[in-house]
Amino acid sequence: MTETTAPHIHPCPIGIAATGTRPERDSMGVIDVPADRYWGAQTQRSLVHFSIGTDRMPLPLYHAYGIVKKAAALVNAREGRMPQWKADLIAQVADDVTAGKLDEHFPLSVWQTGSGTQTNMNVNEVIANRAIQLAGGVIGSQTPVHPNDDVNMGQSSNDSFPTAMHVVTLLEIEDRLIPRVKELIAALNTKAEAWKSVVKIGRTHLQDAVPLTVGQEWSGWVHMLQDALHVLEVAREGLFELAAGGTAVGTGLNAPPGFSKAIADKIAELTGRPFVTAPNKFAALAGLDAMARASSGLRALAVVLLKIANDTRWLASGPRCGLGELLLPENEPGSSIMPGKVNPTQCEAMVMIATQVLGHDNTVAFAASQGQLDLNVMRPVILANCLHSIRILADGCHNFRIFSVEGTQLNEARIQRYVNGSVMLVTALSPVIGYDKAASIAHIAMEHDLSLKEAALKSGYVDAQTFDRLINPLDMVGHGVGGA
Amino acid sequence: MTETTAPHIHPCPIGIAATGTRPERDSMGVIDVPADRYWGAQTQRSLVHFSIGTDRMPLPLYHAYGIVKKAAALVNAREGRMPQWKADLIAQVADDVTAGKLDEHFPLSVWQTGSGTQTNMNVNEVIANRAIQLAGGVIGSQTPVHPNDDVNMGQSSNDSFPTAMHVVTLLEIEDRLIPRVKELIAALNTKAEAWKSVVKIGRTHLQDAVPLTVGQEWSGWVHMLQDALHVLEVAREGLFELAAGGTAVGTGLNAPPGFSKAIADKIAELTGRPFVTAPNKFAALAGLDAMARASSGLRALAVVLLKIANDTRWLASGPRCGLGELLLPENEPGSSIMPGKVNPTQCEAMVMIATQVLGHDNTVAFAASQGQLDLNVMRPVILANCLHSIRILADGCHNFRIFSVEGTQLNEARIQRYVNGSVMLVTALSPVIGYDKAASIAHIAMEHDLSLKEAALKSGYVDAQTFDRLINPLDMVGHGVGGA
Amino acid sequence: MTETTAPHIHPCPIGIAATGTRPERDSMGVIDVPADRYWGAQTQRSLVHFSIGTDRMPLPLYHAYGIVKKAAALVNAREGRMPQWKADLIAQVADDVTAGKLDEHFPLSVWQTGSGTQTNMNVNEVIANRAIQLAGGVIGSQTPVHPNDDVNMGQSSNDSFPTAMHVVTLLEIEDRLIPRVKELIAALNTKAEAWKSVVKIGRTHLQDAVPLTVGQEWSGWVHMLQDALHVLEVAREGLFELAAGGTAVGTGLNAPPGFSKAIADKIAELTGRPFVTAPNKFAALAGLDAMARASSGLRALAVVLLKIANDTRWLASGPRCGLGELLLPENEPGSSIMPGKVNPTQCEAMVMIATQVLGHDNTVAFAASQGQLDLNVMRPVILANCLHSIRILADGCHNFRIFSVEGTQLNEARIQRYVNGSVMLVTALSPVIGYDKAASIAHIAMEHDLSLKEAALKSGYVDAQTFDRLINPLDMVGHGVGGA
Amino acid sequence: MTETTAPHIHPCPIGIAATGTRPERDSMGVIDVPADRYWGAQTQRSLVHFSIGTDRMPLPLYHAYGIVKKAAALVNAREGRMPQWKADLIAQVADDVTAGKLDEHFPLSVWQTGSGTQTNMNVNEVIANRAIQLAGGVIGSQTPVHPNDDVNMGQSSNDSFPTAMHVVTLLEIEDRLIPRVKELIAALNTKAEAWKSVVKIGRTHLQDAVPLTVGQEWSGWVHMLQDALHVLEVAREGLFELAAGGTAVGTGLNAPPGFSKAIADKIAELTGRPFVTAPNKFAALAGLDAMARASSGLRALAVVLLKIANDTRWLASGPRCGLGELLLPENEPGSSIMPGKVNPTQCEAMVMIATQVLGHDNTVAFAASQGQLDLNVMRPVILANCLHSIRILADGCHNFRIFSVEGTQLNEARIQRYVNGSVMLVTALSPVIGYDKAASIAHIAMEHDLSLKEAALKSGYVDAQTFDRLINPLDMVGHGVGGA
Repeated sequence: MTETTAPHIHPCPIGIAATGTRPERDSMGVIDVPADRYWGAQTQRSLVHFSIGTDRMPLPLYHAYGIVKKAAALVNAREGRMPQWKADLIAQVADDVTAGKLDEHFPLSVWQTGSGTQTNMNVNEVIANRAIQLAGGVIGSQTPVHPNDDVNMGQSSNDSFPTAMHVVTLLEIEDRLIPRVKELIAALNTKAEAWKSVVKIGRTHLQDAVPLTVGQEWSGWVHMLQDALHVLEVAREGLFELAAGGTAVGTGLNAPPGFSKAIADKIAELTGRPFVTAPNKFAALAGLDAMARASSGLRALAVVLLKIANDTRWLASGPRCGLGELLLPENEPGSSIMPGKVNPTQCEAMVMIATQVLGHDNTVAFAASQGQLDLNVMRPVILANCLHSIRILADGCHNFRIFSVEGTQLNEARIQRYVNGSVMLVTALSPVIGYDKAASIAHIAMEHDLSLKEAALKSGYVDAQTFDRLINPLDMVGHGVGGA
Repeated sequence: MTETTAPHIHPCPIGIAATGTRPERDSMGVIDVPADRYWGAQTQRSLVHFSIGTDRMPLPLYHAYGIVKKAAALVNAREGRMPQWKADLIAQVADDVTAGKLDEHFPLSVWQTGSGTQTNMNVNEVIANRAIQLAGGVIGSQTPVHPNDDVNMGQSSNDSFPTAMHVVTLLEIEDRLIPRVKELIAALNTKAEAWKSVVKIGRTHLQDAVPLTVGQEWSGWVHMLQDALHVLEVAREGLFELAAGGTAVGTGLNAPPGFSKAIADKIAELTGRPFVTAPNKFAALAGLDAMARASSGLRALAVVLLKIANDTRWLASGPRCGLGELLLPENEPGSSIMPGKVNPTQCEAMVMIATQVLGHDNTVAFAASQGQLDLNVMRPVILANCLHSIRILADGCHNFRIFSVEGTQLNEARIQRYVNGSVMLVTALSPVIGYDKAASIAHIAMEHDLSLKEAALKSGYVDAQTFDRLINPLDMVGHGVGGA
Repeated sequence: MTETTAPHIHPCPIGIAATGTRPERDSMGVIDVPADRYWGAQTQRSLVHFSIGTDRMPLPLYHAYGIVKKAAALVNAREGRMPQWKADLIAQVADDVTAGKLDEHFPLSVWQTGSGTQTNMNVNEVIANRAIQLAGGVIGSQTPVHPNDDVNMGQSSNDSFPTAMHVVTLLEIEDRLIPRVKELIAALNTKAEAWKSVVKIGRTHLQDAVPLTVGQEWSGWVHMLQDALHVLEVAREGLFELAAGGTAVGTGLNAPPGFSKAIADKIAELTGRPFVTAPNKFAALAGLDAMARASSGLRALAVVLLKIANDTRWLASGPRCGLGELLLPENEPGSSIMPGKVNPTQCEAMVMIATQVLGHDNTVAFAASQGQLDLNVMRPVILANCLHSIRILADGCHNFRIFSVEGTQLNEARIQRYVNGSVMLVTALSPVIGYDKAASIAHIAMEHDLSLKEAALKSGYVDAQTFDRLINPLDMVGHGVGGA
Repeated sequence: MTETTAPHIHPCPIGIAATGTRPERDSMGVIDVPADRYWGAQTQRSLVHFSIGTDRMPLPLYHAYGIVKKAAALVNAREGRMPQWKADLIAQVADDVTAGKLDEHFPLSVWQTGSGTQTNMNVNEVIANRAIQLAGGVIGSQTPVHPNDDVNMGQSSNDSFPTAMHVVTLLEIEDRLIPRVKELIAALNTKAEAWKSVVKIGRTHLQDAVPLTVGQEWSGWVHMLQDALHVLEVAREGLFELAAGGTAVGTGLNAPPGFSKAIADKIAELTGRPFVTAPNKFAALAGLDAMARASSGLRALAVVLLKIANDTRWLASGPRCGLGELLLPENEPGSSIMPGKVNPTQCEAMVMIATQVLGHDNTVAFAASQGQLDLNVMRPVILANCLHSIRILADGCHNFRIFSVEGTQLNEARIQRYVNGSVMLVTALSPVIGYDKAASIAHIAMEHDLSLKEAALKSGYVDAQTFDRLINPLDMVGHGVGGA
């Protein structure tokens, strides 16, 4: 690698003032690319060959890739493999990539090579050409900054792409999703606290059961979400291990000794997260298990959200012919034909999101199982599904909180009426008179359409005083959320 | 419904020359919408409440919805429920919707109300306001064309949305996907024909087996795809049945007698496809089984494509250390670090597409199972997944054909070498000398690294003449594709 | 193949009066097998190597395999490849296999070779040894009936196993499952007919909607099931195509010309079903798409059953704090702690069955996609999942019908009360006074807790006479099930 | 609860010497049960109503249930709620349940009530009747030990069933599965160590890549499995939290204060595992998220096993027409028609097992999402799928290790030939001569069928000395497994 003198840097704004096309070259030859785009030959070839659907590789991936490329350049310079000016130049452009300033230069489809090589080359080409522009060179000349020899120095797509996958997925989980989940938990918990003494009827098998409080019921949702959050946080941990330094097959060929640790440290420094180098690079290239594990964390969240959204809409069913315990905010007209109808639309959106996430998780697990020999080439589909799940879960949690949870009210009269009318409070008699006699009281009540007290007295098994002492819903809900 | 005099129609171009916002009204009150957009209050409310992700309701749905709205208007006019001028005006605007001219006025998210009501209202509002504009009225005034009373006349979202779902899914399958599948079948078949006499080694359990021809192997792929195409064609048949005329819960309330059949006939006429009215409207609203069935047809296709793409890349593995029977086109450099590497990237894209489709199909089946009482409110997620599967399958088939199948060549020397070296041709001795003796010849060959003939002679079970008579690969591949 | 003289047949009963072990031999050598079992060396090796779990290859498969072996023998004799006495002997034993008389001699696990070879050899060995016993020979001597050369004549596991898979799956669908589905449909339809004039409130988005009749609602379930039945019947059609005659890789090597058609005809004759030979044997061996398609038919059924079971238990929720429209049979005590509680347990079993079937279908589709080159070696897992789905669906339909559907009663008082109380009947005013005014009446009713009539009069938009004329639930449910 | 005097205990053997039937009674009345069975009325009713398929509730669940019942009795006695003699008697019988001595008295189907109540009652009834027998009472008399009032004291199925689910699943993971996984890891690692210096060609995208060692490749599998094991261990952690003490809806009604903690402590003591009481009982009853999480841990394992089994069989493909690097043990004849064929059957079984586990995991996640209000009634299907996955994974790992991994050998000649022939070693030239020149050398080699050295010299970009210095496979594989 011949040393080059530091060129003068021209701080021109992003953009190429040109029309038509310019030729770009790769190892297969020359191809025309749009003159106002920074990308090069390999990106262009991918655009031609992978004109499939409208799913672009997610932009956050490129933002993470900027971090990877910057880290690599700085490490390469520090080790004396690249002149400092070049590393600084690459780092400067990489920062712009990370900041989203070059988004329109990353046009490739998700449905491309399974290694993500074309997206890695897209990044290499864009950074190289923009750096060349800043250095006053000729765009497309691959000098003084070469997409492979410089921007990709010490890397292969095989290690840099999963590195960027881990970085972006981790950041999206931590910065986009988890805060929204925590806010939702807090909102649900506020309700759980507010309603912790409102006694309501329990329902198991959808059938009337013994009472609990509204707050206890909501505390269950809170706890499930907290558990799911914990599961997600644990599930993301595999993402901290980075493949960088494995290069083509895991041996680290063409990367200098120590590169693995150095680049992981640098990425950790740049992101403020505890990234480390993957202890086994062969696993890191041939598998994508950390991604699949993260996806299973997303699934855990989806499963709970589905349950909460379903419960919410059932408890709010009505207004007059349903359970009607909850009153959801009326956000919009619910029907194009039935005037005045209002629907639990936030719940519906959440349920749909959850089913989407479950399907995505299936795709991810399937794809993760399909690694072959020394590389898993199902990366783009795994990444796209994970990031999509994160996005819709995060936004879904946000909107569900704002437009449903926070505005939910109780129909206390209805709630009270159910408690008073239920026969299942008979359960509290059971420890005193035994299960069988208690059961016969319940049967009497249902058969003769009596209140529980009427049936109990009719049975002769208890007197009124005993009944009143034992059957007090407030006494039946226990204390707190931990059971007996 | 008061009769109105036909207004003068002003043929102004699409677009509203206004800035800022204008007030729009629905049953919940007034809300500001962007002044240069045709949509109304309910669309705007949905934008606020469902700011979730970036997944817009697929545009082809709106194009199909234009057909539904036109058909409804024309039927309403014919039955005397709507003045002809109004129906014609609605139909004219609906045609523009179908032609995609109003696409930018359909901004809603997939993650909205599960019935699709907001998208139905978006269509109603846009058609109404554009019609009002053409009629010289005040946009937002809901007169002389009202989004509910006129554009939605005789309809509910509950019946019109699944109607549009069926129409768009059917058209996408027939017009977008099936032609691409047929072209791929034809391309594969061309190869199957060209190579029908090239004898190659068979592989079962990945282990050497008796020979077949390359053309026979490819004929298997052709046949699988033909079967999958047949499955898809049958699976789409449920889509011909339309929910329109069921209105809110299937009873047809507020639609006039005969509306069901009339609108189905009209949609059939407008599309040239044999749509009919669904015989049971309660099933048509409460379930989405025809969509789930169509999705299973897409899955059948994905399963086969995955197999073909996998086989292709394995047979092309190498160039020197793999099976190496096939030579795929070299479309782009395959590695950012390994010079000269070329990869089976079209196969990889196809495999990823197939795993995506399988995950989508899971989402669809799950969602289809979640209908509750008189309505399934998982419609947008079902639609979005089906249409996405169709799109990527169609484009994937197209690119796989162009950039992989059509340019595939044989490495005939390699193929021949395998046939000559294999021990499994011993099978042809079995009917003559029995399975056990044939097996011992195979064991001799492997143990002593002999050719099959050498081992056979060494065994003493056959003489050279018999061997040469029985072991002729050309004689072992049978005739045609139907087996013995 | 030397001709042998017909031995005398000794009609001894099934069973081997021996203890300890006897040596059996295959191409790998000698191995001891239990002396009182008919199986041979390859079965025994499989027992050793595949001691995995407790899932035995399903017995119905062996019963179907008996048909295949019988058909092969009879065809081989007719073509002069096997003496008639031997074919008759094999056929006689095969009949006993089909009748289940040799079930205990088929011990192998599902988790074995992916081609099913070991199960095919198990059948070959058992038939051979039992035939030898009947012929007065020495069990284990492979003479006068050899498991490979005779019982397997003209076959490979590669074609005979999928042939048996198709036969058994087809028979199980037709004979076990479809009758149960039809009976369930009939039972549901009886209810739909009985209750066709009972007006009830509709519920969309779980919210009160316009009325329909109980019969209409149930007719929707009936129709969904009829559709699913149709889907299943169509989905089973691929099973009619049989792989037999393809032998090892599809070429038909070692099977005589015409064998494919002859054996398919014979199997059709023996079963009374329209089996035919698969037109492309390479597809028939390398893929299992017909099985995957059948599985998607099972899934379609599961999706509908899940919906019906869910609706049923929600509509029966209560008895006092739920929707309470339906009264399910009280089959058993529902709680170990809550006396008198009765639960919708048949619905729960059905929902669990449906989720099991959906998971099985995922396994089947995944496995079907994993065929490699000239053979799909995921056969046992595909077969086991399909047959298990069929079994639990069939039994589930049967028990759900007997113990839930047939004994279901209406709570007509509750149903009537809902209809009377609902506000959504306002929809019927909409065509007369417009959507917006109707909506404001609904809002008045909810806000002031008024009946719909009270609110309507309070609004001033309609007078009492008009209201009474327009708002009649009986008039709102339309006629029949086809909508307007 | 009347105190009773301690009866004399008759240490009679297990079994009831009676024929015909005896009447048993529950709150619904009297029903006949087989006289030689310990179960009572509710078990019998379940047998009648849930005669669905052949899937019995897994026996290990009952063994775990014995622990739960023993713990409850001992805690109840300690708290003075039950006489010590009765607790001791229940504990004694429960120990026999745990030891499997009463297995034949637990006949119920998986497809029963979704809460598992019938299985809980089965346990209660069997323990009660056996205790009555030991106490010299009349079987069926429910005295002196009552199934509900005594054996179920302080419990509901709603809390005891998920408690038993957690206990059994945890024990099965820890005692059955994890040891088998560790043994498999060790066996793979032995090979990785043995072959750590055998250089082989890498393959990415199935195409020839730069070299690595066989040991490095296997180390990747080892590491993946270690990661999966870690994931599983973490995923099982939620199982430590027990629902016991929540009773019917989570409030702990009818259980005394402190019961939750006391029973969890007792179960921890009896099992030697750190079980604790679930902090929120409403979540513990309404959700089954810890089970779904455990299932995702099983899935993680399946995904890796599938990859390893696939790689293994591909690397062993051949013997003459495949990759042929590995020589798997020859366990059994592979074909009923092709003599001498040997197949990678252990790999196939493992792949099938993995697809089964993935499908089961889908069922579990789906079922976990379907909790409704205060109870998830999808318990049996979740349990059955988890335990089945554990069983087949454990046995699969065991057999795969014994019959495939441990006997695997290398075909070193083949491995060496690939390394020598590959063109991709050109990558090592890239840092010196640049990517583009290196690529052109690769193209020259392929185009002219030259060795890499011949092509390099022909290109003129390097001389022989430089080539020999740079292109040394041994230098290209790096050091260890951590990459550069």
